[in-house]
Amino acid sequence: MTPKLLLFDVFGTVVNWRCSITQQMSDFCQSCGYDIDCAQFALDWRAEYQPGMAKIRDGQRGYVPLDVLHRENLERVAARYDLPLTEAEAQQLTRFWHRLDPWPDSVAGLSALRALAPVAALSNGNIALMVALSRHAGLTWDAVLGADLAQAYKPDPQVYLRAAAAMDLSPAACMMVAAHNDDLAAARALGMQTAFVARQEEYGPAQVKDRVATADWDIVTNTLSGVASALRVG
Amino acid sequence: MTPKLLLFDVFGTVVNWRCSITQQMSDFCQSCGYDIDCAQFALDWRAEYQPGMAKIRDGQRGYVPLDVLHRENLERVAARYDLPLTEAEAQQLTRFWHRLDPWPDSVAGLSALRALAPVAALSNGNIALMVALSRHAGLTWDAVLGADLAQAYKPDPQVYLRAAAAMDLSPAACMMVAAHNDDLAAARALGMQTAFVARQEEYGPAQVKDRVATADWDIVTNTLSGVASALRVG
Repeated sequence: MTPKLLLFDVFGTVVNWRCSITQQMSDFCQSCGYDIDCAQFALDWRAEYQPGMAKIRDGQRGYVPLDVLHRENLERVAARYDLPLTEAEAQQLTRFWHRLDPWPDSVAGLSALRALAPVAALSNGNIALMVALSRHAGLTWDAVLGADLAQAYKPDPQVYLRAAAAMDLSPAACMMVAAHNDDLAAARALGMQTAFVARQEEYGPAQVKDRVATADWDIVTNTLSGVASALRVG
Repeated sequence: MTPKLLLFDVFGTVVNWRCSITQQMSDFCQSCGYDIDCAQFALDWRAEYQPGMAKIRDGQRGYVPLDVLHRENLERVAARYDLPLTEAEAQQLTRFWHRLDPWPDSVAGLSALRALAPVAALSNGNIALMVALSRHAGLTWDAVLGADLAQAYKPDPQVYLRAAAAMDLSPAACMMVAAHNDDLAAARALGMQTAFVARQEEYGPAQVKDRVATADWDIVTNTLSGVASALRVG
């Protein structure tokens, strides 16, 4: 069945968070005279992402938007780097996640996909973050669904199910597009179709996880345009 | 203060539901050989809109999406017209609300406004309806907020407040754009900025309500491009 809705993971799948955060950190540190490994800082900040959501997924903490977690995670990482940050600077750095650049194929690929079916962000990023990021990156969605709508974080089934329900579709009519096997596994477990987009350097040249598809996803490719081509053929 | 988010009423403000429903009903009745006053049918169907939401606003009924109310309202009106509808036809007619044409100024005006600030639908229409309607009408939003997100119907304050919160903004940083004085009154009561767009024939030539602004809204105009012009000057 041709999907009636295409749902997208965004961080890593559509935008290159690592290089974007590294570059913005580098500019910031240069202007402040700080000498740190900005590429490693970006990875370390991102490494706090899953632990930051864990308590919310477990129900130990109520839902808070990802902007709040990014800020908390920043404070932990900055302390490890002995990076003194004023309140204004902490706010500024947290907003770096609002200005992430797309992969080279993302804008054209998303546009081609939008001609085939409605496209929606299904990110753990909150709506404010997604809107700012998408305007920065030149991404056009039909809707921003995801964590804020469900008040929960992927891979909580509610995030996927709430998105399908909001579009009045069965999960089987939806296709999840992601660079992460675990995201697709969660979507497939609920009956969704799946497209894997390999982003082999999302975490840099030494990346181990998610370099290849670890299951027989419905589509396996390495660009968003590749998803569009596969759907046109299929 | 220049608004950081522009929120739009959609039915009547951005799209011309009356002529679009009339035309689709006319095509349907012609194909079925039914002889009814389709323009009046469109008005009568729309007249069920506020009563249909009333029980949900009052808390007597849990939230259901507008697609469900449109279907229920259709059945009441069709019975009055002695219009026999199969299940498939009732579904088909309910979907007429997914294919509403924009006013002549809407597409260009919305595009001009989107260059100034993020634009979001703040409609009582559910997300599935808004996405289909916007794709049909060629409207591009940064986000679809509104009833589904808040699980409530305007003018319930939660609809406005949830939208501002999702964008991490104070109500004062948001501007509500609507052709309806009561929508703007609800937004202003919460501290939002307001823009009135007169749509003097939304209900036809005999329209009485909402022909003019009934309060000193921040902007008063008769096109979306007029809102953009006022914001550029202001």
